[in-house]
Amino acid sequence: MNKQEIKKLLRQFKSGEIDIDEAVKVLEDLPFKDLGFAKIDNHREIRGGYPEVIYCEGKTVEQVRDIVEFMLTKNKNILATRASEEMYRAIKEICEDAQYNKLGRTITIRKTPEEYTDSYIAIIAAGTSDLPVVEEAYETAKILGNRVEKIIDVGVAGIHRLFAKLDIIRGAKVIIVVAGMEGALASVVGGLVNKPVIAVPTSVGYGANFGGLSSLLSMLNSCASGVSVVNIDNGFGAAYNASIINKL
Amino acid sequence: MNKQEIKKLLRQFKSGEIDIDEAVKVLEDLPFKDLGFAKIDNHREIRGGYPEVIYCEGKTVEQVRDIVEFMLTKNKNILATRASEEMYRAIKEICEDAQYNKLGRTITIRKTPEEYTDSYIAIIAAGTSDLPVVEEAYETAKILGNRVEKIIDVGVAGIHRLFAKLDIIRGAKVIIVVAGMEGALASVVGGLVNKPVIAVPTSVGYGANFGGLSSLLSMLNSCASGVSVVNIDNGFGAAYNASIINKL
Amino acid sequence: MNKQEIKKLLRQFKSGEIDIDEAVKVLEDLPFKDLGFAKIDNHREIRGGYPEVIYCEGKTVEQVRDIVEFMLTKNKNILATRASEEMYRAIKEICEDAQYNKLGRTITIRKTPEEYTDSYIAIIAAGTSDLPVVEEAYETAKILGNRVEKIIDVGVAGIHRLFAKLDIIRGAKVIIVVAGMEGALASVVGGLVNKPVIAVPTSVGYGANFGGLSSLLSMLNSCASGVSVVNIDNGFGAAYNASIINKL
Amino acid sequence: MNKQEIKKLLRQFKSGEIDIDEAVKVLEDLPFKDLGFAKIDNHREIRGGYPEVIYCEGKTVEQVRDIVEFMLTKNKNILATRASEEMYRAIKEICEDAQYNKLGRTITIRKTPEEYTDSYIAIIAAGTSDLPVVEEAYETAKILGNRVEKIIDVGVAGIHRLFAKLDIIRGAKVIIVVAGMEGALASVVGGLVNKPVIAVPTSVGYGANFGGLSSLLSMLNSCASGVSVVNIDNGFGAAYNASIINKL
Amino acid sequence: MNKQEIKKLLRQFKSGEIDIDEAVKVLEDLPFKDLGFAKIDNHREIRGGYPEVIYCEGKTVEQVRDIVEFMLTKNKNILATRASEEMYRAIKEICEDAQYNKLGRTITIRKTPEEYTDSYIAIIAAGTSDLPVVEEAYETAKILGNRVEKIIDVGVAGIHRLFAKLDIIRGAKVIIVVAGMEGALASVVGGLVNKPVIAVPTSVGYGANFGGLSSLLSMLNSCASGVSVVNIDNGFGAAYNASIINKL
Amino acid sequence: MNKQEIKKLLRQFKSGEIDIDEAVKVLEDLPFKDLGFAKIDNHREIRGGYPEVIYCEGKTVEQVRDIVEFMLTKNKNILATRASEEMYRAIKEICEDAQYNKLGRTITIRKTPEEYTDSYIAIIAAGTSDLPVVEEAYETAKILGNRVEKIIDVGVAGIHRLFAKLDIIRGAKVIIVVAGMEGALASVVGGLVNKPVIAVPTSVGYGANFGGLSSLLSMLNSCASGVSVVNIDNGFGAAYNASIINKL
Amino acid sequence: MNKQEIKKLLRQFKSGEIDIDEAVKVLEDLPFKDLGFAKIDNHREIRGGYPEVIYCEGKTVEQVRDIVEFMLTKNKNILATRASEEMYRAIKEICEDAQYNKLGRTITIRKTPEEYTDSYIAIIAAGTSDLPVVEEAYETAKILGNRVEKIIDVGVAGIHRLFAKLDIIRGAKVIIVVAGMEGALASVVGGLVNKPVIAVPTSVGYGANFGGLSSLLSMLNSCASGVSVVNIDNGFGAAYNASIINKL
Amino acid sequence: MNKQEIKKLLRQFKSGEIDIDEAVKVLEDLPFKDLGFAKIDNHREIRGGYPEVIYCEGKTVEQVRDIVEFMLTKNKNILATRASEEMYRAIKEICEDAQYNKLGRTITIRKTPEEYTDSYIAIIAAGTSDLPVVEEAYETAKILGNRVEKIIDVGVAGIHRLFAKLDIIRGAKVIIVVAGMEGALASVVGGLVNKPVIAVPTSVGYGANFGGLSSLLSMLNSCASGVSVVNIDNGFGAAYNASIINKL
Repeated sequence: MNKQEIKKLLRQFKSGEIDIDEAVKVLEDLPFKDLGFAKIDNHREIRGGYPEVIYCEGKTVEQVRDIVEFMLTKNKNILATRASEEMYRAIKEICEDAQYNKLGRTITIRKTPEEYTDSYIAIIAAGTSDLPVVEEAYETAKILGNRVEKIIDVGVAGIHRLFAKLDIIRGAKVIIVVAGMEGALASVVGGLVNKPVIAVPTSVGYGANFGGLSSLLSMLNSCASGVSVVNIDNGFGAAYNASIINKL
Repeated sequence: MNKQEIKKLLRQFKSGEIDIDEAVKVLEDLPFKDLGFAKIDNHREIRGGYPEVIYCEGKTVEQVRDIVEFMLTKNKNILATRASEEMYRAIKEICEDAQYNKLGRTITIRKTPEEYTDSYIAIIAAGTSDLPVVEEAYETAKILGNRVEKIIDVGVAGIHRLFAKLDIIRGAKVIIVVAGMEGALASVVGGLVNKPVIAVPTSVGYGANFGGLSSLLSMLNSCASGVSVVNIDNGFGAAYNASIINKL
Repeated sequence: MNKQEIKKLLRQFKSGEIDIDEAVKVLEDLPFKDLGFAKIDNHREIRGGYPEVIYCEGKTVEQVRDIVEFMLTKNKNILATRASEEMYRAIKEICEDAQYNKLGRTITIRKTPEEYTDSYIAIIAAGTSDLPVVEEAYETAKILGNRVEKIIDVGVAGIHRLFAKLDIIRGAKVIIVVAGMEGALASVVGGLVNKPVIAVPTSVGYGANFGGLSSLLSMLNSCASGVSVVNIDNGFGAAYNASIINKL
Repeated sequence: MNKQEIKKLLRQFKSGEIDIDEAVKVLEDLPFKDLGFAKIDNHREIRGGYPEVIYCEGKTVEQVRDIVEFMLTKNKNILATRASEEMYRAIKEICEDAQYNKLGRTITIRKTPEEYTDSYIAIIAAGTSDLPVVEEAYETAKILGNRVEKIIDVGVAGIHRLFAKLDIIRGAKVIIVVAGMEGALASVVGGLVNKPVIAVPTSVGYGANFGGLSSLLSMLNSCASGVSVVNIDNGFGAAYNASIINKL
Repeated sequence: MNKQEIKKLLRQFKSGEIDIDEAVKVLEDLPFKDLGFAKIDNHREIRGGYPEVIYCEGKTVEQVRDIVEFMLTKNKNILATRASEEMYRAIKEICEDAQYNKLGRTITIRKTPEEYTDSYIAIIAAGTSDLPVVEEAYETAKILGNRVEKIIDVGVAGIHRLFAKLDIIRGAKVIIVVAGMEGALASVVGGLVNKPVIAVPTSVGYGANFGGLSSLLSMLNSCASGVSVVNIDNGFGAAYNASIINKL
Repeated sequence: MNKQEIKKLLRQFKSGEIDIDEAVKVLEDLPFKDLGFAKIDNHREIRGGYPEVIYCEGKTVEQVRDIVEFMLTKNKNILATRASEEMYRAIKEICEDAQYNKLGRTITIRKTPEEYTDSYIAIIAAGTSDLPVVEEAYETAKILGNRVEKIIDVGVAGIHRLFAKLDIIRGAKVIIVVAGMEGALASVVGGLVNKPVIAVPTSVGYGANFGGLSSLLSMLNSCASGVSVVNIDNGFGAAYNASIINKL
Repeated sequence: MNKQEIKKLLRQFKSGEIDIDEAVKVLEDLPFKDLGFAKIDNHREIRGGYPEVIYCEGKTVEQVRDIVEFMLTKNKNILATRASEEMYRAIKEICEDAQYNKLGRTITIRKTPEEYTDSYIAIIAAGTSDLPVVEEAYETAKILGNRVEKIIDVGVAGIHRLFAKLDIIRGAKVIIVVAGMEGALASVVGGLVNKPVIAVPTSVGYGANFGGLSSLLSMLNSCASGVSVVNIDNGFGAAYNASIINKL
Repeated sequence: MNKQEIKKLLRQFKSGEIDIDEAVKVLEDLPFKDLGFAKIDNHREIRGGYPEVIYCEGKTVEQVRDIVEFMLTKNKNILATRASEEMYRAIKEICEDAQYNKLGRTITIRKTPEEYTDSYIAIIAAGTSDLPVVEEAYETAKILGNRVEKIIDVGVAGIHRLFAKLDIIRGAKVIIVVAGMEGALASVVGGLVNKPVIAVPTSVGYGANFGGLSSLLSMLNSCASGVSVVNIDNGFGAAYNASIINKL
């Protein structure tokens, strides 16, 4: 609510168009309206293409189904991450359209077909073990309306495989690099492109990997300058981030 | 070197225009040319607006001065980060135009005035102690040709100060959040905007801060989805990253 | 035993009212009596409203049932934390009144209805995944005789939800903030109130959360001054602490 | 600004007492006023007894002196923590009344004598090496208007010294326990009293102390239930916290 | 083999009693004999009272049974630590005398009744959750031939319980302190006695306990001087150590 | 492709033996060929003795079987590491020759009998619990064509057992030392030989072992100069490494 | 104060030898006397041979001198650890007899010549860099009245040097092993003797030594059973501990 | 001393050539001689080309000079690592030939010119900041008699620079990779060669580098199989190791 709107309200009140209680009611709400929180809600929830998102980890099958059931009443697209097969089966019962990405552990429900961007996000992964994170990122990016290219198994130990895909990588507007173990792929890709690189360390590895710590630290210390990092195994966050950039 | 160029070369050889040794010499070099490495060099080094960058930490005053001296011959803009005052004085002797940002510990030399973007990068910092990182980011973003808005001392412990600046923050194309201690600012800002947020944890704090670890982990675990993270105190990296995005 | 009582004893001995062995017996026990340990016991165990507490983690079902069985003979209220459903069923058999909070994993048995304080404790949680800790804190605070207000799902990524509850929060005498991931909620709340804030980091999260380490460090480094911290997931400790303060 | 005030304003506008621009000006400010941020400011900054606080770490002598100079114009009490002797000398030049606690590294300036509470805060420390933290807590608690009792050198390795002071400890309304090394004092005190205990781990120690980590973890894992913890060496935070509780 | 024995051998060779090959054979073996390795073996394995020890963790049931079967042929006492019930049942089949301590997870087989020392080892534990480690230590100390006194549930949060047992504690020749969580008991006991204290941190706890790290660091940083530490949960090692000292 | 081959191609093109498209096709591939990637592939995959390697961790039984099935068409030797028994049974169905090392969790399939080196690799292990890593290393070294000597249970706590094997150890061309707990064996062996020692820390141990961290750090800090280290439990990597050295 | 003494007091009171106030005064002090705290004090402070100990780290030169000055009035032996040369010079001025061990950073003042034990403590160190810790342990052990044998530079990388000293090592009643880097010496010695081994990890090393962490973890995980550990660089604690054992 | 020598001795004794005491004296020393320790000494110290090595860290200038002075009497080559300039000046006074590598902080003294191997060690470094470690490795490798090729500033962020040197790298018999920050270079090189790669993580970096931890973990988790790792900044160890391999 801007100055003009306040003035209009004051005049309506003065002219008797609205009474004092109506005026007070509107003015009382000013803080939240004006701080723009509603705007955010607009961005995130009301705008057509934007899906509802549920993070299923630590929720029971019943809780997830109930949330989805409620969301379905709003007729919007839905993305559930870290969802088990059991959750999927429960949702399938209340919504025929639900689809499950077993590797990525995502459930997607499409009420409105998303419109895809012209520019695309490239998702690059070091090894096949990183696929669950890749798939989570992929499903997220897609339902957020992005064109996506996946490039798998191009770890630095066989660097020629990466170079063979350089054209596709360089053609992207924003790049997600998914890698566990030593996470070197982020630096190598970061050095080869001039696009924003969002690095996702994965917990793939053992021993001194310490649950993804080695690739996390590796990526944070990347000697290539265009690399930023999200949490270990956070395919969703990387794709959400990439989607914001891709749509700039 | 693309297919057409190879064909052209082959025809020149067949026609005798060039002899076999010349042809071999060109073809031998194919790998590096075609892999596009030179293109990167174009992006990073040859293109007019792009400055040369020197990371001074761990270098001697002499080394830094020598590097700058050499770079000056190329007539390009120069950015030196983590530079001591002593380094600045040494450079000042060989280059009158050198400027020093004492807080940010950067030296900048401008041979070609940079052209600024229309969109701007917002740099937001929790406290005045974060200023060194802010200034490093600021100088980097400027010399890379970005319009920048700085918003300082808007830590979450007095959150109304942040809200007072919400319009400027939301007007940015990309946002850098600089915060030490518990790094909560990144999450709060991430929840208020729909723009890419690059979070820079700082080593500001003591005790269980463990040299920036607390804000680093905090930012990596941000509950807001559009946040990605760079290394502790890495103002340069954040700005470099933001610049790539701002120019997309 | 104070000076007067010692004098009285000496006089009784001198007058022959008690013999030397009786006198020695009493005097030998002085250390423990006078050091006031018994007083503590009074505070903690004998005073009517105070419940017996059992920490069930690492105990077998049989052990827990036996302890409860013994406590029931003292006719006092009982609180069992970190209790499994199986434990609950075993206790239900010996005590009809036992109640189970499934989320909070607490068993409560009320022999004497607790009297509630006028002032209340506010328990604020960032997300629904933090509910188990919230419920443990809630049950603890209630059985210790406190009025409690719960405010759930007000994480900083959607900060307007928090502000909508500011009145309830500020009306509390002491505030418990429960948050996982980056734990930023503690700092934001700490900056909005002038009441003691007890922060409970939770192990909610994954990857660089490292089992609650990120929110723990975040809360310890809070830039808001009125925040103190208890162990990760320690809802009981937070409520116990808050109860002491609430009853000051 | 509450409903009544808004109504009053509307009526003043309607009656022509104030014109439309004045009304808009007031209403535009509603968000911040109504969200209560100003109230906080009242608490923290405007109320007589509350001092201004400066955290000097990482600031230059000039910066600290400038801040103090500005604050002096507001005629309020001032507390500067982590202040060097050099800072003190600089401030002494602009303010005769400034006092320096060398051990605690605090500068205090009193424009209005504080009124002390009836109840008191007990500050207990394990060893003489913990004195810097004790003194920071002491100066903070005093200038916030609290009566304080200090009990030093009562570490658990000679536990009789602690018992000799039990009456003073139990007489306090809130207790601050300062301890480095293994930090066991917090648990022992926590077990002896029924008052809120705020534990401050210190970085006193060496080797496997890891800069205070051992006492921090020790205190967080305290088997005594009434203990909460602040950051390592954070005497200020503990006292601030204790002061809020002491004044409840 | 000492000087005298070498001389004897040389004389036997000179006199022709043994031929050169026999002499060489003996002398070739000198290194191992004279380095005293055999002596160690004597200490550890051949001497009557000393049991054979098997660490069962990571071994299969079959492996453990086979080892025990082989040991039984040597007719010595046997101690198996970290043994599952299944292992016990398998051993019971081949040896009627085998006994299982379920809490301590030890199997003991006594072929020769051990003779107990006059002096005793005191094993003190903070809480009932530490019992598994206590029992492992107890069984180890007993089969190594030590008199043992167990004192359980004397954690520092109720320090009067500890004092009630001070006489028994002080009467011991060597003391084992078993404690999880913050491990403060080791320091308190260390301050009350003038006997060697062997501290065993346990993994009892949760959250910031980090699998026993908090009590481990606490004990290593003990402000009491007579405390040394063994690995987390290492009841066997503590008792072995205590036994050596008790038998000095 | 070397200069001679390029010249030959050019001549074939000039003479019309091959047309321009064929020539271009070959030349386009130059980058990868000439960068030697193919050579690596030659080394690693095409050369007779070299097996295909599958790392099974995190793969499903079906995935592993499919990969093996495909590899079998190439008629080469196969090594699968971290393979479960279930995987073995699935592979056994499609390949009679498959062999399973249960301890080492490796599956090996030999189509071509490997030729063994004259020099041998010694694999030394501290305890029987280290056997899984030893066996993984053993199977790897064998199928890579190395002669191997295993020396087990020679931990430093009974150092005479190690000395008894010194001749075999010193006879090796390269030595793998496998040890958990404190990993001291690597330093002791490193001090006794003048051969390259590859140390493999194992996760054998508990408590302050922290999943192999203690032996890892121990080996990295070895005071013996000829020791280098691979990841915790990485028997495959150690053997691969040793094989390269053994075949130099 | 034992039963007899209480009886005696009561009788003296009854007979009028002492009046009621005198009796009360004595009895009031019972707690501390009877709890044996005084006994400890006797052990530690009053008994002839026991020195006063000052830990100088973090104390100023003036503080240390003042403490020593006060102690000198009690005419007892004094040991100051972690003392700088400057401290020594200040003490030398007030006490001619003071002696400084520069490497060990200890100041010793002997008023009463200590009587040495028959049995001795062996202090074994891996390298010359460990000497500061060795010397601190040595001075501590000596002034506590122990015979001591030092064996230096017998690190495991040249294990024959250790064996050459085996007789002296085995002759000791208790053994202190001082080692940095990988700390393997503790395990090797622990395997060669049947005496209590107190291991002192030192911060000698760099990189992955992490300030002594590697040797600390190594020693805690020792595969030899008779080894217990004190804090990193804690030569004093090891010697104090060894002295208690040596005098059993 | 082998069988023949023992026999010879016995015969000399029998024939009266030597008396019994002489024989005993020789035989007593057998253990150390026969265990081959002397052989090591031969390898390491007596053999012509092998230098004496001094690790100067933590030693005083006087100590280092004294050690060198003593070594000079043996007329052998000397290598001092981690040596300050001051140490160099002190040594220069007693030995004109001493040479100082300022970057590598090594002092070398050559009495016998080393003979170089035909095969060479390649030392590859990511950046110029890694040069101190490179130079330490270089000086070590040279004085141990190896031919060496240095390849600097070929970090993965500009990977074409690395490929330009591929021939030199592949020509080496063994490769040392020196890299800080994210240490990705080791994996990339490991994937390009079939030679043993010894990776040296360096402490170059800041923030989440944690003193070299990031590159250390990165290298340990390398996805390339031929990589083993030494301690952070341990150029000496890498070169020593490489030298052993290069001379196989």
